Amino acid sequence: MIRSPDNDKLKTIRKLAQKRWREKLGLLVAEGEDLVAAAAEAGWEPRFVLRAGTDVEPELLDAVSGLGSGTRVVGVYEQRWQAPGGDLSVWLHGVEDPGNVGTIIRSAHALADGPVILGPGCADPYSPKAVRATMGSLFARPPARAALAEVPGAHLALGAHGKRTLDEVELTAPLVLCLGAERAGLPPELDVEAVRIPVRTESLNVAMAASIGLYEAARRMPAHG
Amino acid sequence: MIRSPDNDKLKTIRKLAQKRWREKLGLLVAEGEDLVAAAAEAGWEPRFVLRAGTDVEPELLDAVSGLGSGTRVVGVYEQRWQAPGGDLSVWLHGVEDPGNVGTIIRSAHALADGPVILGPGCADPYSPKAVRATMGSLFARPPARAALAEVPGAHLALGAHGKRTLDEVELTAPLVLCLGAERAGLPPELDVEAVRIPVRTESLNVAMAASIGLYEAARRMPAHG
Repeated sequence: MIRSPDNDKLKTIRKLAQKRWREKLGLLVAEGEDLVAAAAEAGWEPRFVLRAGTDVEPELLDAVSGLGSGTRVVGVYEQRWQAPGGDLSVWLHGVEDPGNVGTIIRSAHALADGPVILGPGCADPYSPKAVRATMGSLFARPPARAALAEVPGAHLALGAHGKRTLDEVELTAPLVLCLGAERAGLPPELDVEAVRIPVRTESLNVAMAASIGLYEAARRMPAHG
Repeated sequence: MIRSPDNDKLKTIRKLAQKRWREKLGLLVAEGEDLVAAAAEAGWEPRFVLRAGTDVEPELLDAVSGLGSGTRVVGVYEQRWQAPGGDLSVWLHGVEDPGNVGTIIRSAHALADGPVILGPGCADPYSPKAVRATMGSLFARPPARAALAEVPGAHLALGAHGKRTLDEVELTAPLVLCLGAERAGLPPELDVEAVRIPVRTESLNVAMAASIGLYEAARRMPAHG
């Protein structure tokens, strides 16, 4: 039973709240029964797991947890990154909000056979907020990292300024849906050819746009993956 | 120029961080240029607006702001609630996360002609986090509050346990998409008749499910609203 905040495992968990330590150590933290169960189900061996009252004094686990009081379990795992691929995947550019990145990972897991591919300027998918938003999908479907030029398949940009709408264009596998940040949008060369989701307003949340794009593509390419 | 934290307007803003004060006063706070501009564009007269450096010392505005340092403007408005209606709307049950409620208000504004109708157990759409997530759609399309029995139109429940899928059922206006919390789901009487979005996993984020449902309904009822 860990009874000191100076314990090395607790120190590691504290460090992993910071992006530079996550990158340096190549690790992530998953908090709560659901995420730790999702990791086990997907076959991820933890570097270590700490359970309140069994492995560590509850107050000490609470103190290192982003969830705060009442955290029952925290697991630390090695990050995994997969290669782009699949008949349907998503490429993101400059999506800085970790909640949006995590939610898109969850939606891609639900609707597509390929990963979410992180281009430049995206939030760390292994940040605590992103991990929580994936609801465990991160373990079943680890993310990829690549410049768009390295991603095989047809690139279909989804943007607010597209002349054609999503339902007007042909969709063929392998298809990569490309989305940018809500304000900055896509790089100009992609924005020119973007198709849009027919909306009454100026924009959608990027996670909503990604989910709708994935739904539409999955609906029209039912044989994918 | 306000130079004291004891100023009545600053006190009001501080109170409005709490739900009980929002209910008691019937007011909301909008922080930042974008939200205050969205309110003006939608024709909402503020109860008052405070601009940093003009109306109030910047540090005092920062201190009452949920955004923290660098807040340039805060507006206080009277809450508005509309009646259910429209050819396409959304009814929510037990959606406790204010970010999800706000995001769904934004998506409904983008894709439908009717409001988001809050049933029992939903987060306050006028909480700071929900207001931010709506990105101003709250002003253009205020929410409604009603039990489902009071909502006119065909009620179509979207749930993870539906036997039929969304694309298999006929959609006719006026249509009310009904969604529940991710864990608790819909009330049993609705869950029985729910249709599902075809997914590979157990569930979608409720805001994603609502957005996909709205997209599908808007696509198939193009003449709505």
